[in-house]
Amino acid sequence: MTALDPGVGVDVEGVLRSRGQRIHAVLMSRIPDGQPDRWLYDLVRDYPARPAKHIRPAICLATAVAFGGEESEVVLPAVAIEMLHNAFLVHDDIADGSLRRRGEPTLHAGAGVGLALNAGDALAVLAQRTIRDALDRYPVAVADRVADEFDTMMARTVEGQAIELGWCRDGIVDLTPEDYLDLIMHKTCWYTTIHPMRVGALVGSRGRTDLAPMIRFGFYLGAAFQIRDDLLNLTGSEAQYGKEILGDLHEGKRTLMLIHLVGAATPDERRLLDRYLAADRSERTDAMVEDVHALMLRHRSIDFAAEFADGIAGSARDAFEVAFASAADNEGSRFIEALIPYMLERTA
Amino acid sequence: MTALDPGVGVDVEGVLRSRGQRIHAVLMSRIPDGQPDRWLYDLVRDYPARPAKHIRPAICLATAVAFGGEESEVVLPAVAIEMLHNAFLVHDDIADGSLRRRGEPTLHAGAGVGLALNAGDALAVLAQRTIRDALDRYPVAVADRVADEFDTMMARTVEGQAIELGWCRDGIVDLTPEDYLDLIMHKTCWYTTIHPMRVGALVGSRGRTDLAPMIRFGFYLGAAFQIRDDLLNLTGSEAQYGKEILGDLHEGKRTLMLIHLVGAATPDERRLLDRYLAADRSERTDAMVEDVHALMLRHRSIDFAAEFADGIAGSARDAFEVAFASAADNEGSRFIEALIPYMLERTA
Repeated sequence: MTALDPGVGVDVEGVLRSRGQRIHAVLMSRIPDGQPDRWLYDLVRDYPARPAKHIRPAICLATAVAFGGEESEVVLPAVAIEMLHNAFLVHDDIADGSLRRRGEPTLHAGAGVGLALNAGDALAVLAQRTIRDALDRYPVAVADRVADEFDTMMARTVEGQAIELGWCRDGIVDLTPEDYLDLIMHKTCWYTTIHPMRVGALVGSRGRTDLAPMIRFGFYLGAAFQIRDDLLNLTGSEAQYGKEILGDLHEGKRTLMLIHLVGAATPDERRLLDRYLAADRSERTDAMVEDVHALMLRHRSIDFAAEFADGIAGSARDAFEVAFASAADNEGSRFIEALIPYMLERTA
Repeated sequence: MTALDPGVGVDVEGVLRSRGQRIHAVLMSRIPDGQPDRWLYDLVRDYPARPAKHIRPAICLATAVAFGGEESEVVLPAVAIEMLHNAFLVHDDIADGSLRRRGEPTLHAGAGVGLALNAGDALAVLAQRTIRDALDRYPVAVADRVADEFDTMMARTVEGQAIELGWCRDGIVDLTPEDYLDLIMHKTCWYTTIHPMRVGALVGSRGRTDLAPMIRFGFYLGAAFQIRDDLLNLTGSEAQYGKEILGDLHEGKRTLMLIHLVGAATPDERRLLDRYLAADRSERTDAMVEDVHALMLRHRSIDFAAEFADGIAGSARDAFEVAFASAADNEGSRFIEALIPYMLERTA
């Protein structure tokens, strides 16, 4: 396809809203309306009913269109990925001890860990059922590949979650930006960008498109998304962002900003940081969090991460041209291209 | 098939050991030997590496043989169900705050809740991949039905888990034995007996056997198994049983013994029980647990449950004759029949 003016003429948020409504309606219709309700299916509906961007399903729908398919062909895999996203959120919130999600208390904060954990399991079960229903509609060769994509994505995601939790639990502090990129490749990119795009391209092109370059593009696009997410956790407004601002600092999450700060800190500051990161979450006071935040400002760690994300978005533009070389120049491919600047600008 | 002398000539524990070794070897071979190891795949291997009965996969293998198939045809679904069983155990132990499993500390007690929860997710992901690999080997009509069985079983199990956790969280005390049976139908029977048997029969008979009567038989067999499990929690030896003895009382689990006691208690005892069940787990002292245990002995609640299980085993024998009417009289069907008395006699 020819070079486009990135983002010009594409109302990314409008597309996210309209596609989000469609995905949301199908997702909700696939959650059983039966018993047990208040101990299971009401809880299963809780996170999906909160405001969400639906960026993953929108990527899947748009990529299918870019490669010659129709949105309707990938609605079910798009719904499956959104369900799984909600399952991950429920389990992540338990693992991280998070308090707020999408502007309300986390599920386990209201329902207790046991029922929330189980509702997360149920969301994953429903996602599996949804992807299987999708497979029935594809030719066998395409169906087998979609199923493989789904399994691979699930494995990469639990691996990424393990690495992030392991760093925190074992007090791993000396990390490089490359370690961070490897983490978010697993934890975020695979299920947020790479998988939805590959499945969209696979189904849209009836298995004829080369999916390999989508790993590189999806990695850059997803990395820009995740770094922006980490930045919003520091600088955003809770009303828009929906999680506790500075929550990542409370958790001691190894973000790009934290990794930069550890590298830039003076020996005294480093001792303070080491003590901070070795402490339990519950031992970290608001004052300590503010101190670490102040250090990040002093060492320009936040600027570093924002510039890093800018650089990654530049790489994403190049990788887009390769990955979508055989795509049509239509609303699908234009939406995907417009996501590159959007990832850096979004405020929610 | 003709009536058999139940259990005569069948070495149930020997069969469980030999089939267990085979299932264990395949299960372990399907856990990736890669990274991250200590934060993920070592944890994934933890519970499966502990001593286990492998009763679920053994039921699947034996039923396939009973209906004219070979064990090798159902090794993968049998492995998938054992993986899923381990996933459930990891998540249940988190939900219940349990301390011991299979004679060692629970996974979350060692690795922390976040990494353990994620390892449980990974076990479920591997189970899904395993069942999908199995489906590739079956004719499409059989494969579709096996996949449906798997999805249904997963849904029933999370529903059962929700009911059990919901009763505890909301302090539901006035329950009948029928409520309990409905609970364990969902929580235990579907994945322990009904699913392994239906999949074995489906594959073994190439889809020609009527699976409907296996729900009734599997329910009785699984109920005998679960009531025995609850009894072992009160009366067993921790060395054999592997969990904290009286752990269910600490958790306030609504077992048949507890439900009987609530019904049989004097008004004074009932007030004591209500206070006990309304308390948090952490507020229940060993002395309080011993008091409740003593009440169960006084009101013969344990005898009641043991006799109830005997009655259910009688129903299981009748239901077996119906469900296995078209099965061959061979080592597969004889093993399943021998499980009926075994469920009541097992000590581990």
